[in-house]
Parts: sequence; C-alpha cells; structure tokens
Amino acid sequence: MEIGVYGLGRFGAFWAGLLSEHFKVKGYSRNPERITPKNVIRVTEDEVLKADTIFLCVSISALRDVLERVAKKIKPGTVIVDTCSVKVYPARVMEEVLPPGVKVIASHPMFGPDSGKKSLGGLPMILWPLRNADAEYNFWHSFFTGLGLSVLRMSPDEHDREAAFTQGITHYLGRVIADLGLKESKIATVGYKKLLEIMNQTCNDPWQLFVDLQRYNPHTGEMRKKLHKSLDKIMKLLEGTDIR
Amino acid sequence: MEIGVYGLGRFGAFWAGLLSEHFKVKGYSRNPERITPKNVIRVTEDEVLKADTIFLCVSISALRDVLERVAKKIKPGTVIVDTCSVKVYPARVMEEVLPPGVKVIASHPMFGPDSGKKSLGGLPMILWPLRNADAEYNFWHSFFTGLGLSVLRMSPDEHDREAAFTQGITHYLGRVIADLGLKESKIATVGYKKLLEIMNQTCNDPWQLFVDLQRYNPHTGEMRKKLHKSLDKIMKLLEGTDIR
Repeated sequence: MEIGVYGLGRFGAFWAGLLSEHFKVKGYSRNPERITPKNVIRVTEDEVLKADTIFLCVSISALRDVLERVAKKIKPGTVIVDTCSVKVYPARVMEEVLPPGVKVIASHPMFGPDSGKKSLGGLPMILWPLRNADAEYNFWHSFFTGLGLSVLRMSPDEHDREAAFTQGITHYLGRVIADLGLKESKIATVGYKKLLEIMNQTCNDPWQLFVDLQRYNPHTGEMRKKLHKSLDKIMKLLEGTDIR
Repeated sequence: MEIGVYGLGRFGAFWAGLLSEHFKVKGYSRNPERITPKNVIRVTEDEVLKADTIFLCVSISALRDVLERVAKKIKPGTVIVDTCSVKVYPARVMEEVLPPGVKVIASHPMFGPDSGKKSLGGLPMILWPLRNADAEYNFWHSFFTGLGLSVLRMSPDEHDREAAFTQGITHYLGRVIADLGLKESKIATVGYKKLLEIMNQTCNDPWQLFVDLQRYNPHTGEMRKKLHKSLDKIMKLLEGTDIR
C-alpha cells in the first residue's frame, strides 16, 4: 500500500515521518521550501494524488480550496483521511466535494511534534468512518492502536463539543498568557512551570492553527463566553478587597 | 534547638512534619480538630511560644490578630519566621508588632503538600533577614539548601512583584477554570492534562489562601488587569469570525 501525505507543514512533516517508519510514503507540499522528512519521497501534486490512501495535512481554512481543485484527479477507491483539529466542518466539506467513489475517514491525531516527541503511548486519536470506509477504518484503527495510541471512535459533532472545552481552551489560554508576556522565573512554582509549558507548546504551533481551531469549531464561541464569565466572576469576588 | 510551629492547617502540618525529621518540633493549633503530624509534640499556645525558633503557619489574614495577641509572650532572642505566600504585608506587620528584642526572618516556601510530595529537589524558597537575624538567616539558608531546595535571598517587595505574575496568576487561572467546571476527558491532550493538574493543585489549597494571595499582594491587581486585557484582545481578534 502506498501512502500519500498532502501538505508538509509542521504537522504534515511530523505525520509523514511517522508513517514512513511503516509504509512507503510520498509527500507533497505546494511550498518548495518545506523540508522533506527522512524516508519520505517528495513528489508532485499529481503524483501524491495517485496514492492508495491520502492523508490531508493542510490547514483547516485551506481544505475546501484544495479539495475543490484536486477532487477530479482522485481515482475511485482511494481512501482520503483528513487530520484536521476540528471535525464537523472538514467532514461536511469532504462529503460535499469528494466524488462518490472516493472513500473517506475523518481523523484527528490529538498530538503533534511537541507532545508526541518522547512517546506516542496513550496519546488520543479520533477516527470516524465517514463514507464507505468500514474496512479501511478497521485497518487504521488497528494500526494506530498498535503504535500505542489511544484510538477512539467518535462522531465529528461529539468531537467538536468535547474538544472545545479541552484542546480549544488550552490553546486559547496559551495564547492569552503569551500575549501577557509571561516568562521564566527563578521563583517559578511547580504549577507556574506547567503554565509556561502550556504556553510554549501551544505557541509552537502555527498561529493559523490557533485561529482555525477557534473559528471552525462551532462550540468554541460558547467556551470563550463561559471562560470570560468565570473570569469576571472571580474578578468581581476580589474587587475592592486589596489591602495596601 | 527547639522549633515551634504555630498553626497546623494544611501547610503548617506539612511544614511541622518536614522539620520534625531534623529537629524537636512542638506544634500548636487553636483548632483542636487539627491532626498532629507524626513526630510533632502537640502543645499549648503558651508552650509553643517558648521555642527558640517559631515558624508562623497562620493564614495571611490572621497574622496581625495573632501577633498582636501573643507578641508580649515572646521572649527576647526568639527567632520568628513567617511562611506567608506574600511578603510585603507580613514583613510590615512583624516589624510593627513584634518587640524589638525578637529576631525576624521573612520566608516563603514556594511549595506545599502537593508540589512537595515526591521530592523537594529544586523547589524554590525565599528567605530574607528582616531584623537582627543575620546569623540565623545563614543557618536556615544552609539547612534548607541541604534539603535540596533552591533557596533565594529576595526582598519582600521583589518577591511580591515577581510572585504576582508567577504563583499569583497560576492560582487565579486555576480558580477560574475550576469555576468553568473543566473535567477529565477521554480526548485530553498533553496540554489539557497540564491545565487540569494546575486546577486540581491550586484548588486543593484553602480558598482563604487564594483570596489572601490576591488581596495582600500589592501587585496582583495589576496582574489581573493585564490578564483581562490580554483575554479581551484575543477575544476581539476572533470575534465574528466563526464559521458555522
């Protein structure tokens, strides 16, 4: 089986490298400056679209444009697997745009080059057989489970609801405290060190991923609203009580 | 040398237990329901005040009342060491209330029963020779360094400035996300797990400690203001961009 990885950004390069330890992997990026990971064969767009299974590693906001442009070139029977950090929107786009003969799996590997650096053991990965892909779903479920990942069958809607209040809030707070300019300190407590780790890890990801995570998940708006409500509540509790 | 620990709440019990591995430790609490830690001798208030060195482990907001009531009972030459999580306010109170013959050290062990559970290695502790206590400061500096702690000489003002944007913000965010009701999730990312750890650790401490940390540190008001400003800024960046 030949695997294609479409997109070699921060996550795509990590993903192609990971898969290349087990499969023949072809990688494509529209950006010639992207580095080709070890063991990955760099190919043209036409070439990557000929693979049996193609993992889409493009930003959420680029997904529709990319698919609308290449859909006709994908041969029936090909398995398309997206890896977007939100699921309702990409699932809808893939169902709308990909020709009926193309099989589709929705996936979200909930880790990346930072969090997956040391070990993949127990890291969560969401999989969902979106269209005509039950056998292929079973294959990938077994494969990723074999890597030590905690693979979960979860619908796009269930994913987005849960991810808004887990991954979504983590990235949001990471960006907020980065804006605040928090930095290393000689008197850093254990808790503060964890806060800095969250900041550094989320801010290592592209800004586009952060914005897309917030914009394309239908539940993050509610999360941000609730976060502000809680902040205001605690702020009010303390207001005017300072002792100088 | 006989050590007294005044106050056996969550931190005081931990502290008395720690010191009892190296010294004869007498402990006092006004609350008869507080458990006496192993190896610690439970005594009356009059008795604890006779110790050579007395660690004050009372809440920041109780400090003035306690000291005003017992100051006359403390004999000249006694070393008083507070352990409050803010430093400017307790330093002022101790200088004002304690008789001139009493020696005073300001301290802040920046860890507790949760963060110090596994190991004390590298955990920060602030020490400051506040009044006539240079020799005693040197003794305790060496002793705590010997326990593996990272002991820092830091003035009360410097401590409060730095702590507001490290420990202060961590406790503040921990309480905010607890109010929001964040909970365990099957799809918890590495970053989200750290966020939950921060929440659980800060919320294990008494609510009074949280409020006092915010109220009695002259710099936490500025921290909270800046945090809200950053939140509003990121919120505005995303406003109206949701894609449904």
